[in-house]
Amino acid sequence: MKNITLPLPETLKISIIGLGYVGLPLAMAFARKFDVLGFDISSKRIQALNNGEDVTNEFSSDELSNRSITFACDADKLSSSDIFIIAVPTPVTDDLAPDLSMLREASTLVAQYLQGGNIVVYESTVYPGATEEECLPILEKISGLILNQDFYLGYSPERINPSDKVHKLENITKIVAGSDKFSANIIDALYSSIIDAGTFLASSIKVAEAAKVIENTQRDLNIALINEFAKIFSLINLDTEEVLKAAETKWNFIPFRPGLVGGHCIGVDPYYLTYKAKKLGYDPQVILSGRAINDGMPHFIAEQLFNRMLAQSINLNHANILILGYSFKENCNDFRNTKVHDLVLDIKNIVSSVDVYDPIIDVDDRKKIEHIYFEDNPKKNFYDAVILAVAHDAFRTLGIEKIRSFCKSEGIIYDLKHVFPAHQVDMRL
Amino acid sequence: MKNITLPLPETLKISIIGLGYVGLPLAMAFARKFDVLGFDISSKRIQALNNGEDVTNEFSSDELSNRSITFACDADKLSSSDIFIIAVPTPVTDDLAPDLSMLREASTLVAQYLQGGNIVVYESTVYPGATEEECLPILEKISGLILNQDFYLGYSPERINPSDKVHKLENITKIVAGSDKFSANIIDALYSSIIDAGTFLASSIKVAEAAKVIENTQRDLNIALINEFAKIFSLINLDTEEVLKAAETKWNFIPFRPGLVGGHCIGVDPYYLTYKAKKLGYDPQVILSGRAINDGMPHFIAEQLFNRMLAQSINLNHANILILGYSFKENCNDFRNTKVHDLVLDIKNIVSSVDVYDPIIDVDDRKKIEHIYFEDNPKKNFYDAVILAVAHDAFRTLGIEKIRSFCKSEGIIYDLKHVFPAHQVDMRL
Repeated sequence: MKNITLPLPETLKISIIGLGYVGLPLAMAFARKFDVLGFDISSKRIQALNNGEDVTNEFSSDELSNRSITFACDADKLSSSDIFIIAVPTPVTDDLAPDLSMLREASTLVAQYLQGGNIVVYESTVYPGATEEECLPILEKISGLILNQDFYLGYSPERINPSDKVHKLENITKIVAGSDKFSANIIDALYSSIIDAGTFLASSIKVAEAAKVIENTQRDLNIALINEFAKIFSLINLDTEEVLKAAETKWNFIPFRPGLVGGHCIGVDPYYLTYKAKKLGYDPQVILSGRAINDGMPHFIAEQLFNRMLAQSINLNHANILILGYSFKENCNDFRNTKVHDLVLDIKNIVSSVDVYDPIIDVDDRKKIEHIYFEDNPKKNFYDAVILAVAHDAFRTLGIEKIRSFCKSEGIIYDLKHVFPAHQVDMRL
Repeated sequence: MKNITLPLPETLKISIIGLGYVGLPLAMAFARKFDVLGFDISSKRIQALNNGEDVTNEFSSDELSNRSITFACDADKLSSSDIFIIAVPTPVTDDLAPDLSMLREASTLVAQYLQGGNIVVYESTVYPGATEEECLPILEKISGLILNQDFYLGYSPERINPSDKVHKLENITKIVAGSDKFSANIIDALYSSIIDAGTFLASSIKVAEAAKVIENTQRDLNIALINEFAKIFSLINLDTEEVLKAAETKWNFIPFRPGLVGGHCIGVDPYYLTYKAKKLGYDPQVILSGRAINDGMPHFIAEQLFNRMLAQSINLNHANILILGYSFKENCNDFRNTKVHDLVLDIKNIVSSVDVYDPIIDVDDRKKIEHIYFEDNPKKNFYDAVILAVAHDAFRTLGIEKIRSFCKSEGIIYDLKHVFPAHQVDMRL
């Protein structure tokens, strides 16, 4: 058994398990200083990375080839690691409970290669307690090693904001925590070596887990509140954007916007916290009321559109509708848990012809998506309504005139994301 | 009939109706430029102001005497006003519905003195539509004058933050709106002349009303969310402040704190919006779930304390409890709708001896408060528990050692407001 010491040696071998939005930037950053293995169970992802291709669009081919990382899907490469960093997805199941299966699988994998003196750091978002209650027993049982005696545990919640070019791994303060004082100091030094913004050493793994899960919960609820305002204002015939612009002139009003809340973080993380709360006998009505309204927005948007179409005597059954944007976030090709999907299905309950145009999503990916018809060349003078669902820069570039040209003469443009000025569109959220 | 013209003449006569937190600063500011009448139905308030005394502590005797304002409770002084500004309280009834009685009374009063060319501006917080639906008909009916022909209506929501020495009337952007373009421009010019931070001209009175009511609703809900976190964390044995401090290291985490939400704004305004929403058939579950948790905090706090006392084998029935602070806000002598009152009543359900110490609240005011025993000299070594309920600077000055000296040797200090470091107290919210 060898122990890691301070200052950290450059020969330190760090293995990153999971090379998605979280793992790849970590691997790239640590590779500036240490010997890094990037592991992913997807051979396709590994092959692409070895070819200099990053499907998440966070790194260019040049950046990938200039950084010395071993990318592998062969688990045996994990042997002789000093530090394991687990960055696998933690989604929810169909009944909105935490799905820790990938976290458990990654723990099982790491446990097989765990050696005396190693440190295992988790980056995946979980409820407070999950790392010690769910992952640690797997590590100890399979490895036969004992925490804080033979090996150490750590938690450092990821704060990656996909497709954000300003807030990157290096300039976002990183929370770190360890299973004891020794490991906390090592982990703090480890992350300090790559994070320009510095680290924040939490007093326990549980505090670090809790801090992470409340961040996105707060964001989710704030969007939910604005969505509730939008619903109320639609009944009073007030333009929500106009009200928000006025309210924002107060120094402490917080500028959120209404919209669809999808993706694998903001709409998912709150369920981790509510799961734990319910287990402990507490009914988290504030958080869950926010989730309910956000999950109901596709239906509300479809209804708003239908009401407008009916007011204009447009026959819903024979209408043609175009949806601009499908991914869960602007300028991002990720469509996991996108609520545009729900919106399309809701509309298709009534309207048979719904085309989706999203130039950002990979053509191969599109083929795998069921129930969605992707149209790369929206037809001219064809649509009764166009919903601008995602604020891709590409749609701004396309311009309102071009988008208007897709519509029939009385066609309705519904701008969910306030991409264009109010007078240029027919409806806004 | 005379019409007000731009530039505004210095001979303009402005009457402010209601001289509370909102009306007095307005009167003081306008008096720098115009002929101002400050009207209040309370002869006691008028007498005090004429003696240079401001019970809200916003202005010193010198400031009051240096500003030329006629303070009056004689309604006839309202005659020959050019502009009426109504700044009366808009509380809620016992069943949490908007109480517009003072707004209607003020409108009735103004209507009797309304003349051609006048402008009536409302500053009171209401739901969107209330000014035109509830106040305007009173003005028109009693005066016999017609809107936008004989007189004009305006709305400029107050954004006063009581006892805030940084954000004052003059340096907070002021939203203004008028019943037509002419009056909007006059009102804009009027407020621009006293607000250094400038004005924001909203497109309608309804937009301005909506902007105001969502500001405090957002604040209420954000505190509710942190209160929900605090409740969950109490079950996981996590210190809420520690988690918040960690979360705040993310650039977009919004720094709210748990606590009691009382007073006449944050805990009240949301009910105005939910009242209107319900009238329109919408059930505002996000906003109301926030209200419910905030209103339930006194009970939660009492329970937390009782649990701790029982764990320390303190006999609840024979215990002595001291509450530090009674007003609804730190360093503020206003106790309208303070939730400390609810906390005291909740505790008194079980514990008979509860003393309240609040050096800021006026002695005469205290006498009028039922069910509360104010103790100016907390006894030494007497209390089984002390709750620090309001973060008055006076308690910081008093210091933790002095506060500890009020306790029996095993006495519990429960710091709701994180006034002292965690290790100096026994419990925190």
